[in-house]
Amino acid sequence: MNIAFLGLGAMGLPMARNLLRAGHALHAWNRTRDKVAALEADGARVASSPADAVQGVEMAISMLADDRAALDVALGDAGLLAALREDAVHVSMSTIGLDTVRALEAAHAAAGRALVSAPVFGRPAAAAAAKLLIVAAGPGQAVERCRPAFDALGQGTFVVGDDPAQANVVKLTGNFLIASAIESLGEAVALLRKAGVDPGAVMGLLTNTLFASPIHKTYSEIIVGTHYSPPGFAMPLGLKDMGLVLEAARLLQVPMPTASLVRDGLVSGLARGLGHLDWSAVAEVRAWDAGLPPARGV
Amino acid sequence: MNIAFLGLGAMGLPMARNLLRAGHALHAWNRTRDKVAALEADGARVASSPADAVQGVEMAISMLADDRAALDVALGDAGLLAALREDAVHVSMSTIGLDTVRALEAAHAAAGRALVSAPVFGRPAAAAAAKLLIVAAGPGQAVERCRPAFDALGQGTFVVGDDPAQANVVKLTGNFLIASAIESLGEAVALLRKAGVDPGAVMGLLTNTLFASPIHKTYSEIIVGTHYSPPGFAMPLGLKDMGLVLEAARLLQVPMPTASLVRDGLVSGLARGLGHLDWSAVAEVRAWDAGLPPARGV
Amino acid sequence: MNIAFLGLGAMGLPMARNLLRAGHALHAWNRTRDKVAALEADGARVASSPADAVQGVEMAISMLADDRAALDVALGDAGLLAALREDAVHVSMSTIGLDTVRALEAAHAAAGRALVSAPVFGRPAAAAAAKLLIVAAGPGQAVERCRPAFDALGQGTFVVGDDPAQANVVKLTGNFLIASAIESLGEAVALLRKAGVDPGAVMGLLTNTLFASPIHKTYSEIIVGTHYSPPGFAMPLGLKDMGLVLEAARLLQVPMPTASLVRDGLVSGLARGLGHLDWSAVAEVRAWDAGLPPARGV
Amino acid sequence: MNIAFLGLGAMGLPMARNLLRAGHALHAWNRTRDKVAALEADGARVASSPADAVQGVEMAISMLADDRAALDVALGDAGLLAALREDAVHVSMSTIGLDTVRALEAAHAAAGRALVSAPVFGRPAAAAAAKLLIVAAGPGQAVERCRPAFDALGQGTFVVGDDPAQANVVKLTGNFLIASAIESLGEAVALLRKAGVDPGAVMGLLTNTLFASPIHKTYSEIIVGTHYSPPGFAMPLGLKDMGLVLEAARLLQVPMPTASLVRDGLVSGLARGLGHLDWSAVAEVRAWDAGLPPARGV
Repeated sequence: MNIAFLGLGAMGLPMARNLLRAGHALHAWNRTRDKVAALEADGARVASSPADAVQGVEMAISMLADDRAALDVALGDAGLLAALREDAVHVSMSTIGLDTVRALEAAHAAAGRALVSAPVFGRPAAAAAAKLLIVAAGPGQAVERCRPAFDALGQGTFVVGDDPAQANVVKLTGNFLIASAIESLGEAVALLRKAGVDPGAVMGLLTNTLFASPIHKTYSEIIVGTHYSPPGFAMPLGLKDMGLVLEAARLLQVPMPTASLVRDGLVSGLARGLGHLDWSAVAEVRAWDAGLPPARGV
Repeated sequence: MNIAFLGLGAMGLPMARNLLRAGHALHAWNRTRDKVAALEADGARVASSPADAVQGVEMAISMLADDRAALDVALGDAGLLAALREDAVHVSMSTIGLDTVRALEAAHAAAGRALVSAPVFGRPAAAAAAKLLIVAAGPGQAVERCRPAFDALGQGTFVVGDDPAQANVVKLTGNFLIASAIESLGEAVALLRKAGVDPGAVMGLLTNTLFASPIHKTYSEIIVGTHYSPPGFAMPLGLKDMGLVLEAARLLQVPMPTASLVRDGLVSGLARGLGHLDWSAVAEVRAWDAGLPPARGV
Repeated sequence: MNIAFLGLGAMGLPMARNLLRAGHALHAWNRTRDKVAALEADGARVASSPADAVQGVEMAISMLADDRAALDVALGDAGLLAALREDAVHVSMSTIGLDTVRALEAAHAAAGRALVSAPVFGRPAAAAAAKLLIVAAGPGQAVERCRPAFDALGQGTFVVGDDPAQANVVKLTGNFLIASAIESLGEAVALLRKAGVDPGAVMGLLTNTLFASPIHKTYSEIIVGTHYSPPGFAMPLGLKDMGLVLEAARLLQVPMPTASLVRDGLVSGLARGLGHLDWSAVAEVRAWDAGLPPARGV
Repeated sequence: MNIAFLGLGAMGLPMARNLLRAGHALHAWNRTRDKVAALEADGARVASSPADAVQGVEMAISMLADDRAALDVALGDAGLLAALREDAVHVSMSTIGLDTVRALEAAHAAAGRALVSAPVFGRPAAAAAAKLLIVAAGPGQAVERCRPAFDALGQGTFVVGDDPAQANVVKLTGNFLIASAIESLGEAVALLRKAGVDPGAVMGLLTNTLFASPIHKTYSEIIVGTHYSPPGFAMPLGLKDMGLVLEAARLLQVPMPTASLVRDGLVSGLARGLGHLDWSAVAEVRAWDAGLPPARGV
């Protein structure tokens, strides 16, 4: 397929490479030019703007850092929507808020263009390995036209509804569950440490039995070992995501007290100077709250 | 070994049977006599009091419903401690609070008797199948003398420290993590339902990938299907356990806001008439908080 | 003085009248025209746009419903900033967020114009009686030039700093304290009702002694009597304000768990259909949480 | 009247003196003897036990430090209940929990003796000045017989019900409202400090207008000035009281999230070494959570 790829950050760049590898023709655009050069060597055509990138393509994929960038790239000056072919589909893969995806959907509907929302679970290493989990929502036919691209990017695609915003709610729900697991692990480890019990041994036991999940294994190891640096997902990004969760919860009228709790913990983490660490350093906030000394190197 | 077994409830009875099956001689006692009859047919000697039960045994195992029963059976009139042989060990396998196990420990130390605390993870079915996870703490030699019994009761024994109370903190930590998983699943399912997304499909996806743990699978199925009755672990027991968690947290000076949150949710569940349901019906509280209609049959 | 007044809502209209009464010349503008007619009869000149309204005036006062309106009226098409005389001052009296007032301040600085922020405490009746409490911040000389207007509008003006945003933080702090008083009164009344104690008698006692403040008197009477309708300050406005508090807290890096708690309670109130009531009906949420029946007429 | 007074702590001693001054004959008992000597000089008869103290009196007043002492003095060895004249009344003025007062009530009913519960609002200085607020509950005739004593102790007596436990719920509700006021002031002051606003000026404004109550004046001055030492009411006592509030809330099935929040804050205060300070130093916990430096001398 002829595909435009907009946004070549830590996630977007390896995703774009996988599309090239799978034989798709790629028009690439990034806000800054440095990232594009590497991709050009792999065969991508470099575009000067989102509008330029989507000229003539069947599909435009956007993978951007935040809601503002997602709105600008789609609807701003030289944005993609005005230049998109009538029969093309725009696949928004960014983790963005409910309000933003609703605004995008309304603009696409008014312009007679198809929007699919397809945020992903997985970190940059999973993106490079084409092992992302893709959660998609949008009009059925439009989602089907995206299959070849999704197959090149992930290990599976889960269609959750006709309304693009539903995919974002699912993505935010997943991030919420991860955040609440981190929060509870942080409180648990603080309790164990103050009881003089080895938290590594206990967490090893629990994450090989009752809590034998990738999330609990990964994060209990980070927290027990205080391996918060370099961050896999930095604390300010975690706070941004909890903001998106709570905004969606407000719009859908769902009180989510655990999300509020984690958000307050992350705010405290930033206030105490932990903003350069992984978001799981909210466990460090809970340790300090319990009077425990700061971890080495924090 | 000659073993006394005190407390033949839903957990104690199948545990006692497994000890008989493994060839141990058993003196059994229960507060009410009905349960003992069945065990007598299997070869147990029935005792008239805790003190009677522990006459001459090498090991006394107690498995009781709450802190008051644990104190009474050990330290009350005709309690076991006064009658225990000097070289015998008392293994407390009840889920009891930090204060209580500390009181038991002090009384045993004063009497020159060994106390091992060894609470378990697992429901009655796991007890019957000898698949319990046993978390033990106490003086090293005393713990070693318990091995034959532990081997007959569980799939593995994890020694977490020299101080009996440490085993209880680990058990309470595990229950806390389960409770916080339930809470977060309840909030997540409410959000998905209000977004018009099928929560069963999303939870199926997540609990086969990021959250592929027995706890998340079990409880997301209960919550999505609202299968709260009959309860696996009734709401008042869950509230009791959160009380024990928060009491331990107070004694060890660890703020645990997630435990407070779950506790308040369980109190609300009881106030709204859900006390006959499984403790995971705290998810129903979160659904009502979000304006969703009550589940069928609730 | 020659004054432009922008925004003639429930607060703005009586404020504008008081300026006319004090002898100031008024250019009035409102988004919809109906409100302006009444003021025209009192001697105001009606303007066709914010830019038109501020032609030639010494001071422009804006009193708008939300952040978007505040940005539009100042910085949008035919906004006031571009048309403001070089030596004039813009006094923003709206309750708006930290981000918004910072954006306004930056735009005014870039244009070489003075911005004073002066939000108020007081309801429409206090506005009509010229009894508002005015909290002002901005460059000292600019604040001084506002005195004649402030004197016509309120019972006192409190200058809290040189940076306009500081006045908004003070206003949001006040609203937060009111919200947290409501929350705690709601929990307290639910406890008293379930204990079979007359909450009116107890609150009468407490609000004449320890808690003899206008806020506690007013809101305990509303809550005890369930006089939530008509709303003095509707629940969606309360939720908006808690959002502004938490946004300011995030920007200033202050965890405010009580604000999160109230916010979640208000979200639940909207979800349960209480959005048409006074924001103090969050007490009704707490009553339902405790299993109490709905109040009459709710 | 002939009155027995049991418990001569910081509150009990000045209360007992006021009864003597009002002309009542006093039998005094205290767990330790040092305090009694002073009172003996004032004309009290010193008793060797609670049972001894109540011999022949018409009224026994107990004012004790905690629930355990209240149970011991009434129901323990040489406790007052067994020695109380049939027509005498026992007035429990201690701040104790719902469970404890219910247990006392049941024991008095079984023994055919009248119990009135009458906890007080006010600190030692108010006790000395006979300015306590007395909240009483119990059988109507019994309460009436206490009037002469209450008149000598306080500025007013408020009868809230027939069931002694109701007075304790009212007292705990009052303490809860004070605690939640402290919590919200702590969060507010942290926000103001991080905005660079003078919290003393803002709190001066608010506590002379919207929040012009003794509680808000007193505690905002303590918090703004960080005058936590010497403590008026030490942090461990505050934590004990929040425990009593949450225990009552559990028994009455009322979720009280603000009480949970304050409790967690006080636990964190103890964990961080603030246990020797006034309970309002929970505001210091919130300041640290926001990354602010410790107050002078803390």
